[in-house]
Amino acid sequence: MTAPPNIAKLRVAYQGEPGAFSQTAARQLLGDDAATIPFRSFEEMFQSVAAGDADCCVTPIENSLAGSIHRNYDLLLSSGLAILGETYLRIVHNLIAPPGTTLGDVRRVYSHPVALAQCGRFLRQHPEMEPEPMHDTAGAVRAVMERKQSGEAAIASEAAANIYGGVILATNVEDDPQNFTRFFLLAPPSASIRPLTEPSAQRWKTSLLLEIANTPGSLYRALGVFATANIDLSKIESRPIPGKPREYAFYLDVIGNVADAAIAQAIEQLRADADSVTVLGSYATSW
Amino acid sequence: MTAPPNIAKLRVAYQGEPGAFSQTAARQLLGDDAATIPFRSFEEMFQSVAAGDADCCVTPIENSLAGSIHRNYDLLLSSGLAILGETYLRIVHNLIAPPGTTLGDVRRVYSHPVALAQCGRFLRQHPEMEPEPMHDTAGAVRAVMERKQSGEAAIASEAAANIYGGVILATNVEDDPQNFTRFFLLAPPSASIRPLTEPSAQRWKTSLLLEIANTPGSLYRALGVFATANIDLSKIESRPIPGKPREYAFYLDVIGNVADAAIAQAIEQLRADADSVTVLGSYATSW
Repeated sequence: MTAPPNIAKLRVAYQGEPGAFSQTAARQLLGDDAATIPFRSFEEMFQSVAAGDADCCVTPIENSLAGSIHRNYDLLLSSGLAILGETYLRIVHNLIAPPGTTLGDVRRVYSHPVALAQCGRFLRQHPEMEPEPMHDTAGAVRAVMERKQSGEAAIASEAAANIYGGVILATNVEDDPQNFTRFFLLAPPSASIRPLTEPSAQRWKTSLLLEIANTPGSLYRALGVFATANIDLSKIESRPIPGKPREYAFYLDVIGNVADAAIAQAIEQLRADADSVTVLGSYATSW
Repeated sequence: MTAPPNIAKLRVAYQGEPGAFSQTAARQLLGDDAATIPFRSFEEMFQSVAAGDADCCVTPIENSLAGSIHRNYDLLLSSGLAILGETYLRIVHNLIAPPGTTLGDVRRVYSHPVALAQCGRFLRQHPEMEPEPMHDTAGAVRAVMERKQSGEAAIASEAAANIYGGVILATNVEDDPQNFTRFFLLAPPSASIRPLTEPSAQRWKTSLLLEIANTPGSLYRALGVFATANIDLSKIESRPIPGKPREYAFYLDVIGNVADAAIAQAIEQLRADADSVTVLGSYATSW
């Protein structure tokens, strides 16, 4: 896909360094022609969209091992951005070193501590390799490739190996092959950005934030609205509301588009009972 | 509280180094007389209880910003251990340095990258301080105190400062004061360990894992069992089942003890409809 001339590239912000899993997710959602802009923190990434320095951003929102990232839900809520798309990325970790290094040479392995922990079995099988924490998986590859010191390697994505010219000495070094991260494409609600995942999608998902008083049966009654309309749920998660110990917020993902009459009607019914209902977005899903 | 002579100390395993938040949680649950045993990984910590090298373990299970730690739920499930208690710990981060260091001296700040990220505002206010990632918050204090190099500090708990003789240069350096972690006390179901949190607790909680076919209304019907019995829920969270894309597991916490007739009866009713219901434990709660 080539951008037509005279049309500015789509600018998509992500957290991490080039080669980060978030950058791969951004490419999966928007293609290789989008300009991906790295930010050190999630706060700065959201800020760049608010300031108009980026058109949209791609953020991890949950992981099959680590769970939902509440902090990123909070940033999404306070940003006022809408979810325009989702994608799932299998997290494959690789041992990456400068060309010429062999597996037997490696003595120090640099990566983010979460990635090092996810590769515990491989590292235990190689007690000669000392794990060394870094801020970022892709940043670890960059550092190792810049220094080119003998015995140094990094654990990161294949994309990071390609960007920095590293060689993959071992692949699938993660303990658990069921390691998936879900990413959201976020933009101002008025944006006309359409992700590549849309045309092939069979159905739509709508993400909601629901706040209700925590009395026995209150959630049951709320879910009844969807059950009677035959609307399927793909996610439900309670989250305590800071400072309101007996009230809860719920993240709900339902199958359908908010433009569908059944979904719109269910949300209207929900509003009658709930303290608040926030529609975070409707987007194509391959789920 | 002093242990009577001739009675062996309770051995409680935790992940991290001495001074880790998990060790503080263990003390909150079992008192200062319990022998806390550090392990590098959660796998090794669970293994120590299975092997009889520890009587129980204390594990973080969810955080108010980072969400549920699915990996630790998995380890709990495969371990066959039961939940005997819970406690919540407010995560307060401190800037810690060797005695004699002043705030203005600090140039490098060592900590776990998650802790560094949680203190982003403080670090942006102090651009002269370079964040340096380490495996562990308490381990960062130990390293800084061993080296005693000018300009070095660590971000960690007050407990870590006390253990290694560090001075707190700034407290509450975390961005978000609503940063709580929930910990479980886990032991073999036959263990007669009673946490200190029990006598003061007003009520009990029961944690369940529920697997049901994902058809519209299936969760609604399951929750109906609790709603009609007037049983309150304090947590619900869906989790996709690896390899079964259209089926879900749910973590459910309900208010009450499995020894209560109403709870026991509701669980029996649940079993009639669900693919499986696993009782993870009943324990005192201050919730």
